[in-house]
Amino acid sequence: MNLVEGVLAGERLALARLITQVENGSPEGRDALNRLFSYTGRAHLIGVTGSPGTGKSSLVNQLARAYRHPMDGRQPVKVAVVAIDPSSPFTGGALLGDRVRMRDLAGDPGVFVRSMASRGALGGLSRSTAAVVQVLDAAGFDKIFIETVGAGQSEVDIARLAHTTLVVEAPGLGDDIQAIKAGILEIADILIVNKADRPGVENTERALRSMLELAHPEQMQMGSCGRGGHGNKPRTGTLPALEDQIWIPPVLRTVAMQGSGTQEVLAAIERHAAHLRETGEWQARERERLESDLNNLLQAILVARWREGVSDAELQDIVSRLQDRDLSPYQAAEQLLDLAESPNKV
Amino acid sequence: MNLVEGVLAGERLALARLITQVENGSPEGRDALNRLFSYTGRAHLIGVTGSPGTGKSSLVNQLARAYRHPMDGRQPVKVAVVAIDPSSPFTGGALLGDRVRMRDLAGDPGVFVRSMASRGALGGLSRSTAAVVQVLDAAGFDKIFIETVGAGQSEVDIARLAHTTLVVEAPGLGDDIQAIKAGILEIADILIVNKADRPGVENTERALRSMLELAHPEQMQMGSCGRGGHGNKPRTGTLPALEDQIWIPPVLRTVAMQGSGTQEVLAAIERHAAHLRETGEWQARERERLESDLNNLLQAILVARWREGVSDAELQDIVSRLQDRDLSPYQAAEQLLDLAESPNKV
Repeated sequence: MNLVEGVLAGERLALARLITQVENGSPEGRDALNRLFSYTGRAHLIGVTGSPGTGKSSLVNQLARAYRHPMDGRQPVKVAVVAIDPSSPFTGGALLGDRVRMRDLAGDPGVFVRSMASRGALGGLSRSTAAVVQVLDAAGFDKIFIETVGAGQSEVDIARLAHTTLVVEAPGLGDDIQAIKAGILEIADILIVNKADRPGVENTERALRSMLELAHPEQMQMGSCGRGGHGNKPRTGTLPALEDQIWIPPVLRTVAMQGSGTQEVLAAIERHAAHLRETGEWQARERERLESDLNNLLQAILVARWREGVSDAELQDIVSRLQDRDLSPYQAAEQLLDLAESPNKV
Repeated sequence: MNLVEGVLAGERLALARLITQVENGSPEGRDALNRLFSYTGRAHLIGVTGSPGTGKSSLVNQLARAYRHPMDGRQPVKVAVVAIDPSSPFTGGALLGDRVRMRDLAGDPGVFVRSMASRGALGGLSRSTAAVVQVLDAAGFDKIFIETVGAGQSEVDIARLAHTTLVVEAPGLGDDIQAIKAGILEIADILIVNKADRPGVENTERALRSMLELAHPEQMQMGSCGRGGHGNKPRTGTLPALEDQIWIPPVLRTVAMQGSGTQEVLAAIERHAAHLRETGEWQARERERLESDLNNLLQAILVARWREGVSDAELQDIVSRLQDRDLSPYQAAEQLLDLAESPNKV
């Protein structure tokens, strides 16, 4: 049995091996993705991002456990966690992260956890995360958490891969948190104030709510803010039209270390998924994701093809002329493109 | 007088306008960069990065002031600050940031501060930051601080544009700081524990030192750790050979809000610049920076050229087939590349 068949049959070892192939961008990984792609499109992708120190990993662990042990009599669903780990290989950060998680979720065949290093991914981190998520989707995981540490642009791009994006905050994390919140507010579907047993939780919550009001002034006056509901304009006796169903990100409190608030977050995630499906937004987000993934892939292929037409010596010669200020960057780029396209090259 | 002449003559308005052109990737901006590029290569680029809440902006303000008002009788040098601001345009984060800075440094013609939004940059944020830094370099700024909020991959890439990279930490910022430190330790030339009047400063410092020991085991046993000196192997009566001059990142304490520790950081920055020049590392880093900038630019041009060969309808058709799982991402990319290269296209 080959890796693809193993993955489709639910074998963990085959899954782990194939993910490694896909991460490395090997030809085997690419062939496998081609074959597996028709099995994708079923999973609910949940991005989790926010500043360091907010306790995102604990929250994701709690949510994974809650999906595995439902309180309302529903069937447990299969959960995967892809954690983008900014640690360097030499300190073994990724391994440590996995071990900490394993304590909680070890031995459950319905849970799969994978840390990905954020360095050196072929075609960019977004591309390689998208590919790993596709493998997990094809392998039949129902909920796939994509967790990014940090709040930089690449983390935000990765969170955008998701159907539902959770932004996690915590009280008292310092003075430039405000600025970061403003940036990630646009992508948040659900806002969480974790470590809500700490002093300052009211301030953090108030700050988030007033930023939400700036972003959604009309809806917020309906008073539906923070309840996690749809910000529907009230109509008498009829269901609201689809275009009126605007999602107002709820602001929820959790203390992930104690598990409190987890059920409310899970309920909000499920409400958001239902909202996406009702409004057609689910398809729209999926299309946007596939298009952006395609762009990343094209970019990588174009650069690789161009690079084949230029020798190392030619490239280094141009860089030297750049360093000597003989050429500007634009002039250097044009010369290199001409070289790669020159017809009398062998 | 056009913008390029204005910038070379030190006019602030011309500088601000040209930077906007360059940020927008306009043809005027590109022409100006071609003409200005021969004036670049003189500035000392100083990257400042680290987790949110560590007080990076205050530290950069203090350092800018210290370079403008030297305590040792040296001439003041011209200072520019490029702050990569993750705020979204709609909340006005970038403007706010500028205003806060302006209180401290306003009215000094030897200081120029610019916030850059981290979204929507043509050819990527690294490319557009590199271009803005080139303009400031040509305009005669001696020290250019490139400050990034956050510790994600794109921030690290931007910090890598610099000759000297400062990584700022602060005591008690939470549990996944450790992982981030591991990732950015590799790029740190100087480590700073800011807010050093807070409890826990010894722990933060100890953690940083033990991670340094993991990274540089041999040098650290020489006892030169934390003194900011070169980790030279001791030789009797001779100067150490160049290849033995290994820079060990010093760990320095500051309380930027009170200005304490600023002079020590400034001294370490200058020591690092001298080290780079003595060892030839200055040229090597410059070359690496120019090459990486050239790669970003090439990538943007390649994608733009390819895009011209494909119609919107063709692209959307392929994306639809991707969404229907008719094609895998690799198959879709190959079809699009064939389309763009097809000879019977008009």
